[in-house]
Amino acid sequence: MNKDKTFAIVGLGLLGGSYAKGLKEAGYKVYGIARRQETIDYALEHSYIDEGSTDTKLVEKADVVILCLYPSIMIDWLEANKQYLKDGAIVSDISGVKASVVKPIQDILEGQNNEFISTHPMAGKESSGIEYANTEMFLTANFIIVPTEENTQHAIDVMWEVAEILKFHHISILSIQEHDRMIGFLSQLTHVIAVSLMNTHDDEKLVDYTGDSFRDLTRIAKINENMWSELFLFNKEILLEEITSFQESLQDFKDTLENEDTNKMKELFIQSTSRRKKFDK
Amino acid sequence: MNKDKTFAIVGLGLLGGSYAKGLKEAGYKVYGIARRQETIDYALEHSYIDEGSTDTKLVEKADVVILCLYPSIMIDWLEANKQYLKDGAIVSDISGVKASVVKPIQDILEGQNNEFISTHPMAGKESSGIEYANTEMFLTANFIIVPTEENTQHAIDVMWEVAEILKFHHISILSIQEHDRMIGFLSQLTHVIAVSLMNTHDDEKLVDYTGDSFRDLTRIAKINENMWSELFLFNKEILLEEITSFQESLQDFKDTLENEDTNKMKELFIQSTSRRKKFDK
Repeated sequence: MNKDKTFAIVGLGLLGGSYAKGLKEAGYKVYGIARRQETIDYALEHSYIDEGSTDTKLVEKADVVILCLYPSIMIDWLEANKQYLKDGAIVSDISGVKASVVKPIQDILEGQNNEFISTHPMAGKESSGIEYANTEMFLTANFIIVPTEENTQHAIDVMWEVAEILKFHHISILSIQEHDRMIGFLSQLTHVIAVSLMNTHDDEKLVDYTGDSFRDLTRIAKINENMWSELFLFNKEILLEEITSFQESLQDFKDTLENEDTNKMKELFIQSTSRRKKFDK
Repeated sequence: MNKDKTFAIVGLGLLGGSYAKGLKEAGYKVYGIARRQETIDYALEHSYIDEGSTDTKLVEKADVVILCLYPSIMIDWLEANKQYLKDGAIVSDISGVKASVVKPIQDILEGQNNEFISTHPMAGKESSGIEYANTEMFLTANFIIVPTEENTQHAIDVMWEVAEILKFHHISILSIQEHDRMIGFLSQLTHVIAVSLMNTHDDEKLVDYTGDSFRDLTRIAKINENMWSELFLFNKEILLEEITSFQESLQDFKDTLENEDTNKMKELFIQSTSRRKKFDK
């Protein structure tokens, strides 16, 4: 990508900070916008950005604007600041749910010469905030571009290049429906299970006997309550369906145990073993 | 422990082989009994045992006999071979469920001068067989002694020392009820969840998008169908109760999402986060 291209990162949290760091290290001019001046100061001190401001007007300098905000805030932010966007600037995001945000944002930008192309970098950490910014987490992560029929090939290409610059492990393209269904199962349902398991008992004595299997299963029960409640509500219908499917599978196993149907139980184990092997790295 | 003490390991699988290896390395005389001659040969070639046989009568030479067999086989084995036990020999096991096996075995030995003291080494691997025997897995594992009112302090002390010789990380004593409840929740329920999650969908395309959280949650869905079906059936009532408790917790979360009760959802996240932090190593 032409090194004259300039980027604005709106929201300098864990992911926004990491994006800024990665793009700046690759030689691009990066503008940073954040609510708090101390975040801007931190980003400047660590050379994550070339210029920063709490004034959203700074966005007018950028060819590519990446919104690194919570979904609900993102929509309001764009509504309030769309007039500052440079003519022809491409706008993107990082949000983990798509159906509830992509169309509303494309509607907001209708009538002006700015294209919104949605992406989902499947990277993250337990900790939030720019102090934890790092580009290493991209090296093993998926980057998903989620275009609609309103998007141009050019915008898709630009974000594909951004993912390459940030050194994402795997880049792919999914429709909104494919994306939200996949996230509902692989990411959201797993968090619902871990949280529900952790909330089943309150028995501190168990800690002494905990092995790796319980630890592995519940690691993601440590969860950012603000971000995840929003992600779940934005993908509510699909997530409810995924929970129901899992409940049916669980009840099926329970019935098998209740009936002491050893042969069927073994079949369920053999099936889960064979399916899981495909997921080994 | 007096180095003149002799051990018989009955069943030279992954755990039996590892016990033999560890005890032999520590300088004790170890006899090995297995069904197949090639297992004996392997154990002799690798110096895991001093002497081995497919003939169960060899057990008569040992002061401490450790049954490393599946629960169902173990009870039958002892019934058929109890007359060979040396006068005063202590008998122990490694089985992962207790209520269904301890009393029957103590009943079998009633009237002869042999004490059965049950233990559960919480160690294991995905792979089975003596070829995978190793003592490193004990270094991070819990060793639980599960005495009944029929046991003597002497027998408890002997098995405590065995656990120390094998270098288990943590040794503790639990009642049968405490043990089976703890195992039902921490180990068995987690396997039921992983298996059920893996059996929810059959979609190979998902592999491309799988992150660490899904891999962590489903690692134990690769499972030995013979051993685990037996362990589940031997602990059926408790495991069914644990599944029910988890189902209630899951349904509670689902209702919260359905009702869009954001405040309660955040509380559930905060609770799971705070509980899970106690389980960090």
